[in-house]
Amino acid sequence: MAKDMTLLWASGSPPCWRIMIVLEEKNLKGYNQKLLSFEKGEHKAKETLEINPRGQVPAFKHGNNAVNESIAACLYLENQFKSNGTNLIPQNAQEQALMYQRTIEILNLQQKIIDVVTYTRRVPEEERHDSAVKRNKDALAAELKIWEGYMQKGGPYMAGKSFSLADAVCFPTIALVFRLGLAQEKYPKLVGYHNLMKERPSVKASWPPHWLENPKPMDMLKDL
Amino acid sequence: MAKDMTLLWASGSPPCWRIMIVLEEKNLKGYNQKLLSFEKGEHKAKETLEINPRGQVPAFKHGNNAVNESIAACLYLENQFKSNGTNLIPQNAQEQALMYQRTIEILNLQQKIIDVVTYTRRVPEEERHDSAVKRNKDALAAELKIWEGYMQKGGPYMAGKSFSLADAVCFPTIALVFRLGLAQEKYPKLVGYHNLMKERPSVKASWPPHWLENPKPMDMLKDL
Repeated sequence: MAKDMTLLWASGSPPCWRIMIVLEEKNLKGYNQKLLSFEKGEHKAKETLEINPRGQVPAFKHGNNAVNESIAACLYLENQFKSNGTNLIPQNAQEQALMYQRTIEILNLQQKIIDVVTYTRRVPEEERHDSAVKRNKDALAAELKIWEGYMQKGGPYMAGKSFSLADAVCFPTIALVFRLGLAQEKYPKLVGYHNLMKERPSVKASWPPHWLENPKPMDMLKDL
Repeated sequence: MAKDMTLLWASGSPPCWRIMIVLEEKNLKGYNQKLLSFEKGEHKAKETLEINPRGQVPAFKHGNNAVNESIAACLYLENQFKSNGTNLIPQNAQEQALMYQRTIEILNLQQKIIDVVTYTRRVPEEERHDSAVKRNKDALAAELKIWEGYMQKGGPYMAGKSFSLADAVCFPTIALVFRLGLAQEKYPKLVGYHNLMKERPSVKASWPPHWLENPKPMDMLKDL
């Protein structure tokens, strides 16, 4: 039982979901958790700020040790609970190299999704340009093609034959692009990866509740 | 001797410098290395693309294992060469949590530096706005105050009493802001950290050669 851990999270947030998958894979059950509402501003509430002074989710702590950057929390949990559940760091040097590479490289895709999806939230109306919107979309499409290529050459998991930390970290971001309506026919290998991963018990157990309630994808990325 | 490693790098690039500090700390000497010139477009040359298909530096490989994301390469080198030189991952849970947190969290500062410094390179002239320039600078100043606060409460190293992976990863980014002319009097704790770190043998051995040639800071961040 992981009663000495607390996770404040938001439904569908890839950084939160990463930690939840790792907690499942490491058999760390029964941690304190709370689903926050952005609409109610709960990410800026005192309870969140006490763990994560940036007022962001995830807000995660183990005992008194706060680790809020999602990849940092995943690395910490694997290191602290090496012998629990799934071993997330391959010992084979080739697979380990690829695992670390993809685990950090996914931040490129994450940033390009943010650039597209949060444009109107980030950029004041008087500074917006259609040319910037198009450039951001083109950059995201190019990035997605890189990841489609990775799954074409490699797989079935992110770092090769076995599930690893790279899957816990990368899958939530891949799941998000399909949730946002990415055209499935253009990215068949990413679709295959998504289908493989969504059946994994750790992923099923942590599937975003509001995606379960309303499984229909959005249409934000349908023209990508 | 690390004859089975290759690093293609650029002078003053924090991601490249991180790997060089870790190689020094782990006593991995004699690796193949080449200082690339951006002016000559060497980051897009075949030699670079064979290691790093994104055409970016660092381009790093160990044997046939390419690991180009700098934090990934640092994590990989520590894991593969645990018993060499400095142990970069604290065993104490509290220090380890802070080490992983700062190692990933520095990407916030890195991104905000990029937003300010590369604005005219990234944004076409007809899309530029003074209000965006000001917002980017304000965001960078706010981020720098967060890091000044960390060194005020903690230190002397990034994750506490000992040098760790967090220093190898974070220091090059801190060094860059001073190189870009950050006002020293406003950030006394970061100055103290910079002074401590610049005397460390691994840092001295890997100091950017063009900063040695011309030690005068620039003035891009002097009003921050």
